[in-house]
Amino acid sequence: MEQFAIGLDYGTESGRVMLVRLSDGTEAAWSVVPYANGAMDERLPDGTPLGHEWAVQDPDDYIRVLREGIPEVLRQAGAAPEQVAAIGVDFTACTMLPALADSTPLCRLPAFRSNPHAWVKLWKHHAAQPQAVKIEETEARSRTGILRMYNGKYSSEWFFSKVLQIVEEAPEIYAASGRLIEAADWIVWQLTGEERRNECCAGYKDMWVKGSGYASREFFRALHPAMEHVVAEKLSVEMYPLGTRAGGLTAEMAAVTGLNVGTPVAVGVIDAHAAVPACGVTEPGALVMIMGTSLCHMLLGRSQQFINGVAGVVEDGILPGSWGYEAGQAAVGDLYAWFFRTFGMDADEATAKAGILRPGETGLVALDWWNGNRSVLMNADLTGLLIGATLATRPEEIYRALIESTAFGTYTVIQAFENAGVEITRLVACGGLPLKSPLVMQIFADVTNREILLPRSLQASGLGAAMHGAVAAGVFPDFTAAAAQMSGGFVRSFRPDPVAHGVYEELFAEYTALHDHFGRGGSAAMSRLKAIRQRVAK
Amino acid sequence: MEQFAIGLDYGTESGRVMLVRLSDGTEAAWSVVPYANGAMDERLPDGTPLGHEWAVQDPDDYIRVLREGIPEVLRQAGAAPEQVAAIGVDFTACTMLPALADSTPLCRLPAFRSNPHAWVKLWKHHAAQPQAVKIEETEARSRTGILRMYNGKYSSEWFFSKVLQIVEEAPEIYAASGRLIEAADWIVWQLTGEERRNECCAGYKDMWVKGSGYASREFFRALHPAMEHVVAEKLSVEMYPLGTRAGGLTAEMAAVTGLNVGTPVAVGVIDAHAAVPACGVTEPGALVMIMGTSLCHMLLGRSQQFINGVAGVVEDGILPGSWGYEAGQAAVGDLYAWFFRTFGMDADEATAKAGILRPGETGLVALDWWNGNRSVLMNADLTGLLIGATLATRPEEIYRALIESTAFGTYTVIQAFENAGVEITRLVACGGLPLKSPLVMQIFADVTNREILLPRSLQASGLGAAMHGAVAAGVFPDFTAAAAQMSGGFVRSFRPDPVAHGVYEELFAEYTALHDHFGRGGSAAMSRLKAIRQRVAK
Repeated sequence: MEQFAIGLDYGTESGRVMLVRLSDGTEAAWSVVPYANGAMDERLPDGTPLGHEWAVQDPDDYIRVLREGIPEVLRQAGAAPEQVAAIGVDFTACTMLPALADSTPLCRLPAFRSNPHAWVKLWKHHAAQPQAVKIEETEARSRTGILRMYNGKYSSEWFFSKVLQIVEEAPEIYAASGRLIEAADWIVWQLTGEERRNECCAGYKDMWVKGSGYASREFFRALHPAMEHVVAEKLSVEMYPLGTRAGGLTAEMAAVTGLNVGTPVAVGVIDAHAAVPACGVTEPGALVMIMGTSLCHMLLGRSQQFINGVAGVVEDGILPGSWGYEAGQAAVGDLYAWFFRTFGMDADEATAKAGILRPGETGLVALDWWNGNRSVLMNADLTGLLIGATLATRPEEIYRALIESTAFGTYTVIQAFENAGVEITRLVACGGLPLKSPLVMQIFADVTNREILLPRSLQASGLGAAMHGAVAAGVFPDFTAAAAQMSGGFVRSFRPDPVAHGVYEELFAEYTALHDHFGRGGSAAMSRLKAIRQRVAK
Repeated sequence: MEQFAIGLDYGTESGRVMLVRLSDGTEAAWSVVPYANGAMDERLPDGTPLGHEWAVQDPDDYIRVLREGIPEVLRQAGAAPEQVAAIGVDFTACTMLPALADSTPLCRLPAFRSNPHAWVKLWKHHAAQPQAVKIEETEARSRTGILRMYNGKYSSEWFFSKVLQIVEEAPEIYAASGRLIEAADWIVWQLTGEERRNECCAGYKDMWVKGSGYASREFFRALHPAMEHVVAEKLSVEMYPLGTRAGGLTAEMAAVTGLNVGTPVAVGVIDAHAAVPACGVTEPGALVMIMGTSLCHMLLGRSQQFINGVAGVVEDGILPGSWGYEAGQAAVGDLYAWFFRTFGMDADEATAKAGILRPGETGLVALDWWNGNRSVLMNADLTGLLIGATLATRPEEIYRALIESTAFGTYTVIQAFENAGVEITRLVACGGLPLKSPLVMQIFADVTNREILLPRSLQASGLGAAMHGAVAAGVFPDFTAAAAQMSGGFVRSFRPDPVAHGVYEELFAEYTALHDHFGRGGSAAMSRLKAIRQRVAK
C-alpha cells in the first residue's frame, strides 16, 4: 500500500497542500486554498484601516487550509488516512503573531479584533523600519555581537522589528500576549498541541543563536524598558532541529483534517529553506535559487564565514550538520512584470524579441534595485538605474538589460561567497520562473558561467515540507536519504556559452562599478531622491 | 499697395516659402515643398548604397522649392511680383556640396551621379567622425588657435570634417570640385548669379574667423597634403555680414519664380540664427530657444567669452554688432517621441498624466543624453541614464523625468553662460514644441526659474529670413528696426513657480552630480558600452 507524506506550504496569498509519494517523491495530489482574507494591506475584515506599508493575515485562514485542503488531496488520490505517514510544514517568514499563552491568537478575541497589532504580521509588513533601525543602533552601542550572523543588519521584516513595533504602538497588545510566535511554529502547535519551535526561523529571523540563545535582558531593556523580560515572558526558549518530530496530530485536528490521530508532524521550516533538499541538494557546492517574484539564494557550507551583506548564516539552519547561508534579490520576476506592465508588452513577445539579441548588443546596463537591494548591500533605499539608452533603444532591449541585471545581481552574490572561500560549483533553480522563461535561465547561466540544473519538482518548498515530515517520522534516517529517494534528480540543464560569458564579464565590470558607486558611498543620489519623493508626496 | 518679403526656409525634409507683410511681419501666405529625394540615408536615387551614418540631399530639390513654392504663395495672396521687395534665405548648416567653379553641383554631372560624395552632405551626415577627430588632433599639435571659438572641439557635422572625408574617400571628387560650398551660399548664388558667402555659416561651421580668415596653408597641409591649397583653390574668401544684399534676382530665376528681375536677395543665414530677430530679440540678455526634435540656444553678448562647451562664439554671427553664442541639446522633441514610441503612450495621455505630478514626486532623475551631449560636454558617445526607478514607477513618471532632464540640460547651459559673466534674464522659445506642449514650457520655466516668452510667430526661421531680406533691401536700417516692426511681440508667457523651482534645485543638484560623474571623467561607462555594442554588432 502506497505511503504518503503531506507537505503544507503556506505562502503569501494561499496555502498549498501536497500529497507526496514516499517511494519516489512524486505528487499524488495537490490543492491550493486561497486565504479568505488574503494579504491585507489596506484594512482589516471589519474595515479598520491599516497604515502605510502594513501587511497582515488572519490565522484562521491557515486553519482553513487544513480543513479544506487535506480532505481534498485524500479524496483526489483515493488515499486512506493510514496511508499518510507524516506531515511537514513550511511557511513564509518572518510571519508572526501575538497569542495567549494557550496559543489563541489575540485577533480572535473580540476585545482586540479591531486592533491591527493583534493580527498576524506578514513577512512583507514593512512598517517596522524605524524599529529595525533602533535594533541596529542599540546593538551598535551595546556590542553584544548578536547581529553578527546577519552582518550587523536587522531587517524591518524580521521578528523583533515587528515585536518592538507592537511594544511601541500597541502596548496593550504586548501586555495581553503570552506568546509572540512565528506562524510556522504556531500552526505546528495547532496541529500537535505542542509548542515546538524550529531552529530555522529562530536563527534566520528571530535573533537566536544556536548554543547561546537570545540576547541578554540588558540588551532588550536597552531596546525598550518594557521588553526587558520579553524572552522569559513571551517566548519559548526551546528550539528543535529541522527534521525533528514536533508531535502527533491531535484528536481535534484529526477530526478537522480526516487524518489519523497521532500522525507525525515535523517542526516548521521557512519556505525557501525547505526547498533545498527537495532540489536534491544536501551537500555544499550547489547554490539553490528559488526564483519567483523575488529570488532566494540558499547555500550549504562546511564552516561559518561572515560574508559581507549575506543576509544570514545559521548553524543547522537549512539542514542539520552544515552551516546554512541565505542571500537574496528583492525583485526578479517582479521586475520583469514591471517591464511588461510599464511598456505594454507581453511576456511572449518580449522574450521572443529579447532572445535574438546578442550579449552587449543593447548597449544597456541596469542596476536591478527596483525594490532595493537585499544582499551584499542590504539597503532598501536603493532604486533602479538604467544606463546606455539612445534614440534607437527598443523596449525588448530594455527587457533584456533588466534580465541581465538580475543575473548580475546573482553573480555578485556568488562572488561574495567565493571571495569568502565558500565554493559554488553549480546552480540549481526552482520556483515559478524557470519554467516560464528559459531565456532568463540561459542568461543566468551565461552571466555566472555556471551550469544551472532544474529539479523535477519546481514547487520545491511543498515537496521539501513533505520530506521534513518524512524525516521527522523516521521514514528516512536523514535528509540525504530522503533527498536521494524523493527529489527525483534533475530534468533540465542550461550550460553557459563561453563566448557570451566573455562579453558578460565586460558588462559585469560596468555593473559592478555602478553597483559600488551608487551602493557603497560614491553617490547617495538614490536615497536622497527617495527622501525628496517622500517629502513632496505628503 | 502692401509690400512683402519672401523668407525661404530650407529644412531637413522640405523647403518652406513664406510671404510676409513688411508692415507688421504677419504671413500673407506660405507653402511647404517636400524634397522629392528627401534626406537620403540608405541609397542615392539610382540605388547606389550609402554608408553607415550618411545623409545626403539633391540640390535640384532646393531649386524645385523656388519653382513651385514662390508662384504658389504669390497666387495664394493675390500678390503681384512688384509687391515683393526682398528675398531672404535661411538653411540648415553645415549642409555643403562640391560644385564646379561656375556653381554646377558635381552630382548633376553624369560622370559623378553615382558617387555619393558628389551629392550634398546634409547637416546630419555623421560619417565624418574620424575626420573631425583628425582635425582636433591636428590642431592639438599645431596650436594655431583656430578652434578656440569652438572651445577646441570640431564637430563631425561641420564643413572641414565633410571636406576631409571627400579628400580621403573620393579624391576624384575633391579634384573635380572648383568650389566646396555651404548650401545656404549655393542657393543665394543660384538666385543672384553672385557668390556671396555669409559670415554666419563661415564662422559657426567653416572654421573662419572674422578679421583673420582661415587657418594657414601649413595647418591644412598638416591635416592632409592634398588640402594645402584648399582655401585658394576651392573656397571664396570674401565673406559678407548678415543683412547684406547679395545681389538681385537673375533673369533666369525671375522666370523660374515669377518674380521681377533684380528683386533684392540677402546673403544666407543658418536657420536657428535667423530665428533670433524674428523672436524680437536684438539685444543681449534673452536666450532664444529653437525647440523641436533638438534644441538650439542662441544668445547675443556684448563681448567675446570662451565658455566651456558652448558650441561656438562668433563676432556678428547672429546679428551685426554683437557676439553670437550658439549652444544646443541633441535630443529634446526626439527624446519625447522616443518615450511615446517605446512606452506605447500617446502625447496627450502622457501629458495629462505627467502634468498632475508634483516636482520630485517621481523620485526619478534622468540624464538627457539619448543622442549624446552637444553642449557643455560636447561628447556624442554619451548616452541616456535613468535613476530612481521602483516597482511603483509608472510610464508618465518616466515621461516627466525625461522632460525635466531636458530642462536641466538647458539650465546647465544657462549656468555655463552666467558663470562666464554672460547674463541671461529671460527665455524666448520658438519652434514646433512650445505650441505642442505647455507642460514642457512650464517645466522649463520652473527648472530655470526664468520667465519664458513665446513670440507671435513660432515658425521663426522663415520670418527671420524674410527680415534678413528686408534689411538687405534697405527697407529697414537695421535688424532692431526690422524686429520692432515685424516680430509682433510676445503672445504668451510661462512664469516660474518658486516652490517648484526650490524642489528642482535639489533635483538639479542630483542631475549635475550625475552629469559630472558620467560626463567629466568619473565614469567612462557610456562610451565603453557603446564600444562593446559596436564590436558585438559586427
